[in-house]
Amino acid sequence: MSVQIWYQHKVRVRYQETDQMGVVYHANYLNWFEIGRTEMIRALGFPYRQLEELGLLLPVVEAQLKYKLPARYDDILGIYTRVATLSPIRLRIEAEIRKLGDEVLKESESIGLTARRVDHTDGELLVSGYTEHVWVDSNWKPARIDKQAPALYNGIKQQFSL
Amino acid sequence: MSVQIWYQHKVRVRYQETDQMGVVYHANYLNWFEIGRTEMIRALGFPYRQLEELGLLLPVVEAQLKYKLPARYDDILGIYTRVATLSPIRLRIEAEIRKLGDEVLKESESIGLTARRVDHTDGELLVSGYTEHVWVDSNWKPARIDKQAPALYNGIKQQFSL
Amino acid sequence: MSVQIWYQHKVRVRYQETDQMGVVYHANYLNWFEIGRTEMIRALGFPYRQLEELGLLLPVVEAQLKYKLPARYDDILGIYTRVATLSPIRLRIEAEIRKLGDEVLKESESIGLTARRVDHTDGELLVSGYTEHVWVDSNWKPARIDKQAPALYNGIKQQFSL
Amino acid sequence: MSVQIWYQHKVRVRYQETDQMGVVYHANYLNWFEIGRTEMIRALGFPYRQLEELGLLLPVVEAQLKYKLPARYDDILGIYTRVATLSPIRLRIEAEIRKLGDEVLKESESIGLTARRVDHTDGELLVSGYTEHVWVDSNWKPARIDKQAPALYNGIKQQFSL
Repeated sequence: MSVQIWYQHKVRVRYQETDQMGVVYHANYLNWFEIGRTEMIRALGFPYRQLEELGLLLPVVEAQLKYKLPARYDDILGIYTRVATLSPIRLRIEAEIRKLGDEVLKESESIGLTARRVDHTDGELLVSGYTEHVWVDSNWKPARIDKQAPALYNGIKQQFSL
Repeated sequence: MSVQIWYQHKVRVRYQETDQMGVVYHANYLNWFEIGRTEMIRALGFPYRQLEELGLLLPVVEAQLKYKLPARYDDILGIYTRVATLSPIRLRIEAEIRKLGDEVLKESESIGLTARRVDHTDGELLVSGYTEHVWVDSNWKPARIDKQAPALYNGIKQQFSL
Repeated sequence: MSVQIWYQHKVRVRYQETDQMGVVYHANYLNWFEIGRTEMIRALGFPYRQLEELGLLLPVVEAQLKYKLPARYDDILGIYTRVATLSPIRLRIEAEIRKLGDEVLKESESIGLTARRVDHTDGELLVSGYTEHVWVDSNWKPARIDKQAPALYNGIKQQFSL
Repeated sequence: MSVQIWYQHKVRVRYQETDQMGVVYHANYLNWFEIGRTEMIRALGFPYRQLEELGLLLPVVEAQLKYKLPARYDDILGIYTRVATLSPIRLRIEAEIRKLGDEVLKESESIGLTARRVDHTDGELLVSGYTEHVWVDSNWKPARIDKQAPALYNGIKQQFSL
């Protein structure tokens, strides 16, 4: 059985993210997916801000979300992120949003910290999905990540055995 | 050749919807998909607010988006919406976000009005996708739309020949 | 009695703008203030996008809001905007958000259109306030609007008898 | 010299919070003010979610913001919050948003944690302001916090010597 590698980052649901159904407005999960991958890349040693300063952007070309259960105000969520496929010009990132219970919280107070590597997911699954990305330069021309940020490229390959 | 039925609703890109890449932040397209279906249902005679007052909610259970080109600040966009599949408990709604050029604008000043039925789409395709929904009651239990809002159910069936 | 000059722009409350209190989340009124002044400037002949292309930015340096009554989902709102004070480097813009009733709507279908000049405000007052701005160039250095966009400067002076 | 009491809560600027000026869109500071007071109340022992379950709401009736310097993507911010005035039906909450430098970060990794009490503010001042609130019940009728949540009322009085 292969071990799963995920990066876990915790957020607390903000009031502004709810809507009048009394749950989180559905578009916010895409924001959280983005926060999850940002923190995963930071944990790998590459703050996204630095990549932008190098002239590298990572726009989304496709996104899919499956909504199982709604998140609610003040919930503490685990955003789980991992790279599913990687080529020099394209990658797919999988994400899960899970509700963390109180025990999970007690064991760690690192809400909002940089993501940490974990070998399994915790909590009740709320939303799962993926985003697909291409690397582009600051003129929105395709860029090759293996050439322009080889350490990041190799770091991702190693980390996720790709 | 079969005629396509779409509902077109126009919006102008808000400053708040941009990000520091200089384009629209990608999660906003999900908001626009929702605005498009709201206005389509209104054009069919059923303001979503009325449905909520009847105790009917229409949460999203799945969403997919394909991003071709980015929208930019102040662009006038056509949100095109149509129902692709319909059953008494579930429906899939397709959406396209297109950038409308100046001619398209001159012919109609109805930005922000209720959607209108059109038989083709105009403008450059930016983002396409779909959302899938189930009808639930105010306790989030599955509801049958053919029983609880038969006029809406039949209206959608007729309009889209489903 | 002096006539009031306002620019009126209509918006419909979006689902995403509500929160679990069942009303509009309070930060959204600041967005609407900004949309109101953008549309006022457009109506005066100066799309804000053009100003940005000239290298002029208009950041907010102060904002005040007084909340009387909440807006709700699907309400049609009148955003009323006018310039209260103007100097070559600074201006204060007043704003009111009012709920428009059905009669007001029937007389005009221009929801979402560019603002139009009106000589009185309509509808129930929900929120009032102002924003104060300085003109800066693309390096965030102070700019003189009377020098860099004299037509806009004079247009505002005339329009509001300043 | 009197000691100042503030509650400090840290957040990291999200990509979605930026706009095409390359800085944080100005309405987001109101969200952060709200997050700051939520976390302050939680630190005092009263999660806002519990208050809502008791039927107590705390809508904003007035807000003021003074913008000194813009926050940027990925900045770590200190949201500083304190109660300035308190009566059984009304309170004013002051807030400051400050940019925390790297040393400030090293000394504590508690980004996103519940607010902690501090006796001075750190970091470069970006935005300051206040919000004014009234307590209402679930029908939006005025409520007396000293009667309906006396422990919270007394906790705030003590904490801020009011």
